[in-house]
Amino acid sequence: MGAHRVYLPDLGPADFEPGTVLEIGGQEARHAVRVKRLRQGDKLELLNGQGLRAVAVLGESRKCPTGHGKAAWSVTVRIESVGQEPQVCPRLHVLACAPKLTRVEDMVDQLSQVGAAAWWPLVTRHTIAPPKAGRMDKLERVAAEAAKQCGRAWTMEIGEPAPLADVLSTTHRAVGPGARLVIAHPGGAPYSANGSKEIAILIGPEAGFTDDEVDAARRAGATVCALGPHLMRVGTAAVVASGVILNAERSR
Amino acid sequence: MGAHRVYLPDLGPADFEPGTVLEIGGQEARHAVRVKRLRQGDKLELLNGQGLRAVAVLGESRKCPTGHGKAAWSVTVRIESVGQEPQVCPRLHVLACAPKLTRVEDMVDQLSQVGAAAWWPLVTRHTIAPPKAGRMDKLERVAAEAAKQCGRAWTMEIGEPAPLADVLSTTHRAVGPGARLVIAHPGGAPYSANGSKEIAILIGPEAGFTDDEVDAARRAGATVCALGPHLMRVGTAAVVASGVILNAERSR
Repeated sequence: MGAHRVYLPDLGPADFEPGTVLEIGGQEARHAVRVKRLRQGDKLELLNGQGLRAVAVLGESRKCPTGHGKAAWSVTVRIESVGQEPQVCPRLHVLACAPKLTRVEDMVDQLSQVGAAAWWPLVTRHTIAPPKAGRMDKLERVAAEAAKQCGRAWTMEIGEPAPLADVLSTTHRAVGPGARLVIAHPGGAPYSANGSKEIAILIGPEAGFTDDEVDAARRAGATVCALGPHLMRVGTAAVVASGVILNAERSR
Repeated sequence: MGAHRVYLPDLGPADFEPGTVLEIGGQEARHAVRVKRLRQGDKLELLNGQGLRAVAVLGESRKCPTGHGKAAWSVTVRIESVGQEPQVCPRLHVLACAPKLTRVEDMVDQLSQVGAAAWWPLVTRHTIAPPKAGRMDKLERVAAEAAKQCGRAWTMEIGEPAPLADVLSTTHRAVGPGARLVIAHPGGAPYSANGSKEIAILIGPEAGFTDDEVDAARRAGATVCALGPHLMRVGTAAVVASGVILNAERSR
């Protein structure tokens, strides 16, 4: 098992210079000391979610006698080494309709593990309502936690709801110049790699894309792919599509 | 959306002759009439989990006035047409350590959707205990329900716990003569198709395979594959591996 990971999204490169001593407070400090039971001298891995990965050594830990709960804990760590990692190539934007309730959290967690660059809630004719602001905030936390768990140097981005028409006009950021557009639909071909560095995969709602939507995607230059022999729920289709595309492009 | 599906695992080909009228009782009958609100003349799809897929028309439905609960319901259906479908090719045996608690149910559900032929609980050095008999029964039901949901003609098989040593001696049924053996491990190559018709993929526990286990797999002829750029939990790794392998072999 690797070192315990601490997520520090507010820190930039200057904070991670070797030799620097950082003070970490709150939940991350309490978790390291009370849950993981790390001790002075133990190694930690620090991530800022923007490509920095540092190795650090735990110094002192303390609980402020007048503080309460998580906020009362703090630890110091000394940076030993640091590196800036590139993003996973290709950058894969997953534009998938949001599944219901907590399934959307499971999907964000799995997409983080598989290596997608971003998830955008796709809005189509048959989409149920995209997640509300409160749930979107929760999804940011799910993505951050997943980055720690799976050792991602770059946290998966959680995008704003993306109407299909915007995506197909290819002015949407997920399908900027040069990006490959792929739509998952029964009857398409298996995915075939073409060396793209930016890819947007469209995954419809449980009720599927309409024929008009698939035609419009085709006219916009999208490749129609079937990602398995059976129907899949949105969350499963999204994670399988991501694994298939990343493996195909990385083995090309 | 397709027709409502009814799962009838106890019936064989003779029961599905066109023109035959079947009486269906219990949970499946109640679900069709009370939850899906199907009416006389509506089409249904019948699956026996062993490759048969029939189209049928709903006849009479009734609730026995003296019966109680689900058992009181029954419907008749008349078979219109029937076909026997082949299994998905390649046949993919997923030998994955069981994740904890309900995560194993999520994994069986997702593996069914993606098209794996069978899941066997792999037992390795660092495996937590394989599921108990009660949970294995539950997993059979999860696989049957998933087959209905995703329209599989063949229900995914739930195998017995498979010790790694048996699998690597290649006398295990999942890796019979001619099967390709693949082990998921960080540092391996992306998956590359070779046209195998039977494939067994080994997915380790959260704590990973030991170096000895990976060496033994290599000596047994296994291909070592890394299935993504990040660490994945067992359930995610299993479903991603299945999608990657099936897509690569089917697009070859």
